[in-house]
Amino acid sequence: MIIDIHGHYTTAPKALEAWRNRQIAGITSPAQMPKASELSISDDELRESIESNQLRLMRERGLDVTIFSPRASFMAHHIGHFQVSSAWAAICNELCYRVSRLFPDHFVPAAMLPQSPGVDPATSVPELVRCVEEYGNVAINLNPDPSGGHWNSPPLSDRHWYPIYEKMVEYDIPAMIHVSTSCNPCFHTTGAHYLNADTTAFMQCLTSDLFKDFPTLRLVIPHGGGAVPYHWGRFRGLAQEMKKPKLSDHLLNNVFFDTCVYHQPGIDLLARVIPVDNILFASEMIGAVRGLDPETGHYFDDTRRYIEAAQIDAEQRHKIYELNARRVYPRLDVALKAKGR
Amino acid sequence: MIIDIHGHYTTAPKALEAWRNRQIAGITSPAQMPKASELSISDDELRESIESNQLRLMRERGLDVTIFSPRASFMAHHIGHFQVSSAWAAICNELCYRVSRLFPDHFVPAAMLPQSPGVDPATSVPELVRCVEEYGNVAINLNPDPSGGHWNSPPLSDRHWYPIYEKMVEYDIPAMIHVSTSCNPCFHTTGAHYLNADTTAFMQCLTSDLFKDFPTLRLVIPHGGGAVPYHWGRFRGLAQEMKKPKLSDHLLNNVFFDTCVYHQPGIDLLARVIPVDNILFASEMIGAVRGLDPETGHYFDDTRRYIEAAQIDAEQRHKIYELNARRVYPRLDVALKAKGR
Repeated sequence: MIIDIHGHYTTAPKALEAWRNRQIAGITSPAQMPKASELSISDDELRESIESNQLRLMRERGLDVTIFSPRASFMAHHIGHFQVSSAWAAICNELCYRVSRLFPDHFVPAAMLPQSPGVDPATSVPELVRCVEEYGNVAINLNPDPSGGHWNSPPLSDRHWYPIYEKMVEYDIPAMIHVSTSCNPCFHTTGAHYLNADTTAFMQCLTSDLFKDFPTLRLVIPHGGGAVPYHWGRFRGLAQEMKKPKLSDHLLNNVFFDTCVYHQPGIDLLARVIPVDNILFASEMIGAVRGLDPETGHYFDDTRRYIEAAQIDAEQRHKIYELNARRVYPRLDVALKAKGR
Repeated sequence: MIIDIHGHYTTAPKALEAWRNRQIAGITSPAQMPKASELSISDDELRESIESNQLRLMRERGLDVTIFSPRASFMAHHIGHFQVSSAWAAICNELCYRVSRLFPDHFVPAAMLPQSPGVDPATSVPELVRCVEEYGNVAINLNPDPSGGHWNSPPLSDRHWYPIYEKMVEYDIPAMIHVSTSCNPCFHTTGAHYLNADTTAFMQCLTSDLFKDFPTLRLVIPHGGGAVPYHWGRFRGLAQEMKKPKLSDHLLNNVFFDTCVYHQPGIDLLARVIPVDNILFASEMIGAVRGLDPETGHYFDDTRRYIEAAQIDAEQRHKIYELNARRVYPRLDVALKAKGR
């Protein structure tokens, strides 16, 4: 089985974006603020948006299951206040849940949180609870910078975030550390902000003792870990100078990397540097890079091809494709086993 | 010949830091502000600080020449106002110049600029001119984020920066894009802020047409290009979606990467992905990562070992060690040739 742990609902029907635009307008003109009930998307529309896009590509590429969360760049936690994020997160999470019910063999939901700049992360816990308890979500996406590129929240190691971690540990669910749209003109969203956030989050973990407080907390760093595997020697050396334990002991029981790296040399480096138990298959399709690579004739984000070509053996590939995901996302494993998979 | 294009004066005599601390105290207590003339460091002290550190390691590692600039993390452009940065840059640049005079066969100076948050970069031009005209500097370090991690300056593609570029083009000198200390608690200076800045700067170039305005402008992205080579497929794909030319045409006549990547797999990736004409040898020693790698028994920042072991031929190695540096830093080439080197 091949599990893609990093898919977003980037192809939702246009009505979703139209509702969001009305909501944004409603921030300054409260009379125009739409109700959640004013968004109407039929099951047929959901089916069509998935079957012609993600599911079509999953079938073409031989992928079985996708962990599916709301579109990352549309989370835009910087927009409006907590109630705005709360209504938006509820709608987006419900859509991913509905997709998971329409295609129960192929999609398992993960939740976005109603984060908002300067607001206590504890306010996100009720939505997290709802998504796990009622919607069967197996993970969350946690935005380390709800400001969208101004980086004015505390580091992930700060107690600020502990209410989220406590609930994650209770439910035994991991978080993917994933920022959203950059509203800082210095940072291109998918070309800089995403990768910077990955590197930043890893370093926040490295300099801290977060996993002493939460030994079972699991964080997934997407986009192949940003700059981390490429600079693994630098990180090993920095940890050594800080008198931290070896990275394998200090972080690798708790930190995992996905395979959203869109060329063969990058995946080869990842597989060479990072222990195979810490690598989880993912593509983030249909996402930031949708084109065909003229050097290969295949889609940049068809990451399975790179894993197939990597110098690893069948058992290692099995871990990357399936076993690691079952271990890092135990609720996914339970859901699959309940179906005899 | 082996030219290390990325060295900082990290080992300056303690009197420099003491003066700086007095200067910082003087920002709030102007009566305490020290004069530049109150800093006294003898030639013997400079010699000792270099011979026992950088020059010793250069000899051990077989490096001939280092392009030598003030300590990057101490630039700290976020501290104080323009006059503070101006006095500090003048002192630091003079010290690097003196080192280059004491060891003319081994050190060639590059300048830090007296940048200051919110201040027009044109104010840095006089120091740039002085360093080139009087001190024989062959390059500058340009900080894309003088705020130190708040990223509130315009992107490098903005006309804001053009006064610097115009002078660089006139003198035919490159800039290394190098941030300084992070004062944002989210970003560890050498583990996150440096690498993020490298990725950010590259993407700012990618999304813009900066090199149409300045076809001969040359920017060196340090630390192996941050996350860029590891994600080269992502950047190729993003450029393609933006209808930009191929990266080789769009950026690689103007953007170069150094080899400050502190493990063999990283250097192997760099050499595999980035055209050899765009890779310049560097170590940034004695810098962020000073320890011995227990996996190899050698210093993490002994980057020559990785280049020696990389799967490239002698001519490619010659380009990385010497020829590319002579091409990208023409004033270095002139200075070397004047000595028959």
